[in-house]
Amino acid sequence: MAPSTPRLVVPIDLKKKAWDQSLPLHNRWHPLITPVAEVHTDEVFRVEMVDWTGGVIGDNHSATDVQFLDLSITHYLSGPIRVVDKDGVPAMPGDLLVVEICNLGPLPGDEWGYTATFDRENGGGFLTDHFPCATKAIWYFEGIYAYSPQIPGVRFPGLTHPGVIGTAPSAELLNIWNERESHVQENGLQTLKLCEVLHSRPLANLPSAKGCVLGKIKEGTEEWERIANEAARTIPGRENGGNCDIKNLSRGSKVYLPVFVEGANLSSGDMHFSQGDGEVSFCGAIEMSGFLELKCDIIRGGMKEYLTPMGPTPLHVNPIFEIGPVEPRFSEWLVFEGISVDESGRQHFLDASVAYKRAVLNAIDYLHKFGYSKEQAYLLLSCCPCEGRISGIVDAPNAMATLAIPTAIFDQDIRPKASKVPVGPRVLKRPDVLKCSYDGNLPITKNPSATS
Amino acid sequence: MAPSTPRLVVPIDLKKKAWDQSLPLHNRWHPLITPVAEVHTDEVFRVEMVDWTGGVIGDNHSATDVQFLDLSITHYLSGPIRVVDKDGVPAMPGDLLVVEICNLGPLPGDEWGYTATFDRENGGGFLTDHFPCATKAIWYFEGIYAYSPQIPGVRFPGLTHPGVIGTAPSAELLNIWNERESHVQENGLQTLKLCEVLHSRPLANLPSAKGCVLGKIKEGTEEWERIANEAARTIPGRENGGNCDIKNLSRGSKVYLPVFVEGANLSSGDMHFSQGDGEVSFCGAIEMSGFLELKCDIIRGGMKEYLTPMGPTPLHVNPIFEIGPVEPRFSEWLVFEGISVDESGRQHFLDASVAYKRAVLNAIDYLHKFGYSKEQAYLLLSCCPCEGRISGIVDAPNAMATLAIPTAIFDQDIRPKASKVPVGPRVLKRPDVLKCSYDGNLPITKNPSATS
Amino acid sequence: MAPSTPRLVVPIDLKKKAWDQSLPLHNRWHPLITPVAEVHTDEVFRVEMVDWTGGVIGDNHSATDVQFLDLSITHYLSGPIRVVDKDGVPAMPGDLLVVEICNLGPLPGDEWGYTATFDRENGGGFLTDHFPCATKAIWYFEGIYAYSPQIPGVRFPGLTHPGVIGTAPSAELLNIWNERESHVQENGLQTLKLCEVLHSRPLANLPSAKGCVLGKIKEGTEEWERIANEAARTIPGRENGGNCDIKNLSRGSKVYLPVFVEGANLSSGDMHFSQGDGEVSFCGAIEMSGFLELKCDIIRGGMKEYLTPMGPTPLHVNPIFEIGPVEPRFSEWLVFEGISVDESGRQHFLDASVAYKRAVLNAIDYLHKFGYSKEQAYLLLSCCPCEGRISGIVDAPNAMATLAIPTAIFDQDIRPKASKVPVGPRVLKRPDVLKCSYDGNLPITKNPSATS
Amino acid sequence: MAPSTPRLVVPIDLKKKAWDQSLPLHNRWHPLITPVAEVHTDEVFRVEMVDWTGGVIGDNHSATDVQFLDLSITHYLSGPIRVVDKDGVPAMPGDLLVVEICNLGPLPGDEWGYTATFDRENGGGFLTDHFPCATKAIWYFEGIYAYSPQIPGVRFPGLTHPGVIGTAPSAELLNIWNERESHVQENGLQTLKLCEVLHSRPLANLPSAKGCVLGKIKEGTEEWERIANEAARTIPGRENGGNCDIKNLSRGSKVYLPVFVEGANLSSGDMHFSQGDGEVSFCGAIEMSGFLELKCDIIRGGMKEYLTPMGPTPLHVNPIFEIGPVEPRFSEWLVFEGISVDESGRQHFLDASVAYKRAVLNAIDYLHKFGYSKEQAYLLLSCCPCEGRISGIVDAPNAMATLAIPTAIFDQDIRPKASKVPVGPRVLKRPDVLKCSYDGNLPITKNPSATS
Repeated sequence: MAPSTPRLVVPIDLKKKAWDQSLPLHNRWHPLITPVAEVHTDEVFRVEMVDWTGGVIGDNHSATDVQFLDLSITHYLSGPIRVVDKDGVPAMPGDLLVVEICNLGPLPGDEWGYTATFDRENGGGFLTDHFPCATKAIWYFEGIYAYSPQIPGVRFPGLTHPGVIGTAPSAELLNIWNERESHVQENGLQTLKLCEVLHSRPLANLPSAKGCVLGKIKEGTEEWERIANEAARTIPGRENGGNCDIKNLSRGSKVYLPVFVEGANLSSGDMHFSQGDGEVSFCGAIEMSGFLELKCDIIRGGMKEYLTPMGPTPLHVNPIFEIGPVEPRFSEWLVFEGISVDESGRQHFLDASVAYKRAVLNAIDYLHKFGYSKEQAYLLLSCCPCEGRISGIVDAPNAMATLAIPTAIFDQDIRPKASKVPVGPRVLKRPDVLKCSYDGNLPITKNPSATS
Repeated sequence: MAPSTPRLVVPIDLKKKAWDQSLPLHNRWHPLITPVAEVHTDEVFRVEMVDWTGGVIGDNHSATDVQFLDLSITHYLSGPIRVVDKDGVPAMPGDLLVVEICNLGPLPGDEWGYTATFDRENGGGFLTDHFPCATKAIWYFEGIYAYSPQIPGVRFPGLTHPGVIGTAPSAELLNIWNERESHVQENGLQTLKLCEVLHSRPLANLPSAKGCVLGKIKEGTEEWERIANEAARTIPGRENGGNCDIKNLSRGSKVYLPVFVEGANLSSGDMHFSQGDGEVSFCGAIEMSGFLELKCDIIRGGMKEYLTPMGPTPLHVNPIFEIGPVEPRFSEWLVFEGISVDESGRQHFLDASVAYKRAVLNAIDYLHKFGYSKEQAYLLLSCCPCEGRISGIVDAPNAMATLAIPTAIFDQDIRPKASKVPVGPRVLKRPDVLKCSYDGNLPITKNPSATS
Repeated sequence: MAPSTPRLVVPIDLKKKAWDQSLPLHNRWHPLITPVAEVHTDEVFRVEMVDWTGGVIGDNHSATDVQFLDLSITHYLSGPIRVVDKDGVPAMPGDLLVVEICNLGPLPGDEWGYTATFDRENGGGFLTDHFPCATKAIWYFEGIYAYSPQIPGVRFPGLTHPGVIGTAPSAELLNIWNERESHVQENGLQTLKLCEVLHSRPLANLPSAKGCVLGKIKEGTEEWERIANEAARTIPGRENGGNCDIKNLSRGSKVYLPVFVEGANLSSGDMHFSQGDGEVSFCGAIEMSGFLELKCDIIRGGMKEYLTPMGPTPLHVNPIFEIGPVEPRFSEWLVFEGISVDESGRQHFLDASVAYKRAVLNAIDYLHKFGYSKEQAYLLLSCCPCEGRISGIVDAPNAMATLAIPTAIFDQDIRPKASKVPVGPRVLKRPDVLKCSYDGNLPITKNPSATS
Repeated sequence: MAPSTPRLVVPIDLKKKAWDQSLPLHNRWHPLITPVAEVHTDEVFRVEMVDWTGGVIGDNHSATDVQFLDLSITHYLSGPIRVVDKDGVPAMPGDLLVVEICNLGPLPGDEWGYTATFDRENGGGFLTDHFPCATKAIWYFEGIYAYSPQIPGVRFPGLTHPGVIGTAPSAELLNIWNERESHVQENGLQTLKLCEVLHSRPLANLPSAKGCVLGKIKEGTEEWERIANEAARTIPGRENGGNCDIKNLSRGSKVYLPVFVEGANLSSGDMHFSQGDGEVSFCGAIEMSGFLELKCDIIRGGMKEYLTPMGPTPLHVNPIFEIGPVEPRFSEWLVFEGISVDESGRQHFLDASVAYKRAVLNAIDYLHKFGYSKEQAYLLLSCCPCEGRISGIVDAPNAMATLAIPTAIFDQDIRPKASKVPVGPRVLKRPDVLKCSYDGNLPITKNPSATS
């Protein structure tokens, strides 16, 4: 072993179930979830992770596993990892934890992933009103590249990153989360602009003992019950980082995470081989198992030094990060615009979400003219390295959002041309994404964790 | 003259007022505004433009001109330009007009610009609740670079672009605009999420004869009155392009604009030496006079071929574009995150506008720790080549937006460090932006166009 | 005028001959050539320049002007410009002159250029043994882009730069140059490896009163005679910078030039709209008239501080520079290799010049398979933004050089493919470069400067 | 196993010696070296490789292993690999073999490398006249980054690549190589320009049975003797690719190799974590063991279709390649120039090798002013991702070469400044490279392969 070989601190055995790993995983945020490993600053260590569903979605020819996925189990995370400095003193609340992503990738022997949309009644997605059915595409990796039998004609290098990376919240921060998210869940409908189009999506993902996995804390104990009912779901990103789904957190990037509990308790998971800005289809990256090689540093007192609370308490902060030097390089981009006027022609006021939705829909329809099904285009824009920008946010009443697609990922020239060859369905019978029909009447969900 | 010297089709004489140019300008969108010039496809032509205010804001040491700016006069545009093909056949409704930006820049002899925020009662900006006063910074250009005496310590290459470029709407499209924008103006308050923070900003910018300039159409005539009362304001971007404020529309880019009237009637203005995604301070780019060297092509029937209506009529389309090959290159970025929780700690549902606001506020507070006033940081983030991304838009309840700042624009290392030298006010008496006080009691606005 | 408008210190009137400009030009390096202008540090100033031949080569349909070009007149330079600091103290020997290229471009009204090869008996080029005839292609500019009627199928953005920028040598440095170059001229043949292939090219370009232009110094005077007979030719780059032909000296770059005489005496010329590494055809860039907007700074004592003499005297130094941030961006490159084995199959020992020659020849033959004539390919590789690398220089006996071509400059996909459509002559009668026949028997050269 | 998991076709066991691997290695080029594996087109396969010396140079605190390295053993290659198409038909002479590098990296558990210079009497290097002693620096990897205890103050991402990748020569091509290289060895001295400075370096590396390893062919047999005495050394790159040391052959790149024997017989080795253009110190990359994940395609008849013989026979061709999309991205470069005047002040005629030598020496002296020893700078420029360009090759008598260094790899700002803080020896006792003294009197070399 070279002295610089990363120390494996969280191993994953792919032949075992997510809930049977030697170091137990967890899928909630809570200060009392016990660390499974300890690292010191400046050592490079390796963390392995299952995919976000813990293997429920398979490399097969059906989208049924997506249709009936139990979302209460997400995301299976590796950790928490306690971080101490060279003298053994742990990271303390108020510090900044610097996490450098030295390397990452799929787990050896498991070089594949999937992109999917959920059924409208089971999670949905950004465009669930247009695409109510569960769909799935499988991606195979060839080193840095991915291709999908279900979306022929594209191949691209991954901008690989962890969808989830974060520190444990303190009890106080956890309370803040639960209160504000309960509020939106209870009072949401009358105040929400997006309510019509998104009515069937949950407004928040509140704590739920169902599907809960809490690491070393044994299910069935009183402690488990208490924690399970207050631990935060991992679905939204928050002050601790978490499910930020920031596609640029790739090789060589550095994340500066606030520390809320002693030891920082760093967790990670939801590895993405590639993702577009927004991850629009929800299960929208190329989801996979994977590994991270990390190196930590501690900036003592760094929260006060570098972060400013943006709300009523000193805990209302957000992480910052630096982008790494080896992102895929594209020089030609085709860009789609969207303004905050919805599909019914209704004007919204400076709403970047509506504008981005429009830009994505424009891009889907455009790609459809080149022979892709709309479902293929939706999944593709969700997982390829496209960029979603807030281009204008002040020119009332229209927000302006843009979606930029690198043209090099296609095996045809997709730019508009004066002498365009008509495409239509390019091949009479092309492969398409795997689909389920939508009947608005979901069967009883199977919870794989219930079998544990 | 080399055969490839661009033909000057719209000249600007900077010694004359905006309303006294030899070819009259206009500041509204309407199908009946008469073309001032004609170009044919494949010729490179030059269009000169005043700054968006027509010279009202000056290179002086006061923000008073910003405070009392009459927004009804914006934006002074050059054109319309009628586009015909080599055989003299004009662009027709349903075609796509391809506009290549071969070159652009400030007008010779006028190499300066300004960035400003408006008073809360007179336009405001994205963060008007935090920055209610009018402020201004002057920028001087040194070739590709800009620097400001009011924001010392930064210098950066411009990603120069036109804030406004668009085709004339048809009467039918104009009606659609006026109806939907009236609706949001009338019914806006009870349905808007952002209402608390933005209550004093106009919800829409509806047609207004005040300040209206209509090119060759003589003020005072019956025709002028009729058009002035129905012509669309140029403030929001729309189906025809217009004020898209897309910072990447720079040298070498191509815009594909839908054609709604015979000849396309292309207009442009609002030149920006540089702008950040979002142009957050509203008057937020480095605003300047300038020139465009353009080359047009026509894709016959291209609207149907390449664009898909995204609303009730075939006119509900959006332009697309390709990014050019000579954008400033930065390799190191510091990135700030924002989630859809507002400053009061209140949770919003997947709201990218709130998330982006939070990311910008985080960045402002961060830069403040390095010796910049918050006003300096606000103006800087509005006009420097920073990137605003919609990173996550599906993980309920939090949208995740990011703001990436190129670190090379600063003369100090702004990355977090374990051994940070305390900054505080780096110099006891540093220059700051030019400011006006806010009293919520605006005097009567002077309308420069009223003097014409 | 904005305070940041560049001050025009050397104007060019294109309607006048090169030798009739209001501020006289020069085409030799000598300490006694008098400055024509003075600038101070931190001011942005504008220098205008004729093309390197002073207008001898024209935008016409013949290569005759190239065939009979009098090389003794090259290069017409603007300057010298004396540089002083804010207190009026001039740059002094031993200082470093920092020259920032804030902006540059073709002269307005003169937006065209040419690329050429010389006749084997009159200058030749890197591949003169393969291409003995004079050829020429005209390029027209469309903003950042150039295209040539003689080389259809390519269009690319320019990486515009001055071929020549340098300070005046001291008398001592001038002596060093003249001695060492005389030596190679006299003793060259028996020691040169390249002698077979390059035998007809001059081994050095020694001082010559013929064609000499010395700025304010009047022709015919004794002073003129003396200086003309010892002033260095501008063809090779040397310790003072000079004709470095470094294609990356573009917008935003900074050159650190050693100062050998009081005031630095900065001169520039030989503007290139674009050039490939090596400028292989000799008159190989897209040659044009143009302007530079420059800003100077002085590092007092900087030669000793930053440069190390690499020879017997403290004057044996070389400039250094920083690359600017707005070079054209290409993501896909096709790369050709060359090793130090020549066309006869003979092995050379670690000779990067032979290896690069081979790489260029490989690329020419390759492009020929896609329908370009070899002359077109030769001129194209000389002037497009291709990169010439010394990839391996230690693996005896073969040096390895590579030539990388950006694929985006072609209107066809030039990558190798399993299912290639045969090309042959793509169009039976395509345009080609303008050619002269080679008869090894040059007529008497006309010297335009003799008419002055 | 995912269906896209690369198939391991050549395994390396790092616990075994280079000559004891289960699939035997080889260190010569010869058509009769038998394939050790077979792959078909479109499958992704994995090749593992020892470092070029087969483990002779160790992660220790002495340069003695470098000083006494037996160069006759280089390079240990994995392969040959026979390539067949989907129907089992092998690649045939005249085809082009397309090799895509899907992924690569160090071998797990062996994440370190070394950079070294050889003793002047034992291989030397590009600057052996300035640096006659053996030196060594150890590099440790942290994911994409490398750092060296012997060269503190730098850390950079690797542009990882195979130094050697090539197909087997035919008997005819082998004869061509041996003839031309014998010729330069025998007749070299009187014709070489570089002879003074490089006199002790071998002019060619001719066939030698000493140290020879021939895969499955048993040492001691008559066949072995015959082949060993005519097989080509792997040191120079040639028509078959081979030791090209092209630093851009990294992830995602594609090499188009000519096929000279049935099955192509692809071999690879000499993995480099990083290397600068030129690999100037000879053992100049960050040398390591490693793996390649490759995918092959065959272009039938591609040699004739795409390559042009550049010499007397159809075999005088060179490979071409495409650069991949994930190279490290740097935006700021400091560039050093060199002209073809040597250190004695003597003028050479358009000699790019001399010019590049000068550029490298300039850069070394420059970095020395920032606290690095000259040996540290030499090794650093040899292995960091710097770019070596042939900038001008036509302006007699000076060739102009440039060396561009990315400034971001240093922990200090190395750009020239008016207010530079003097550096001198920054720390009184800094670490330095590992050194051996040079006495021109080498002991008897130990040949590790002799023990097999």
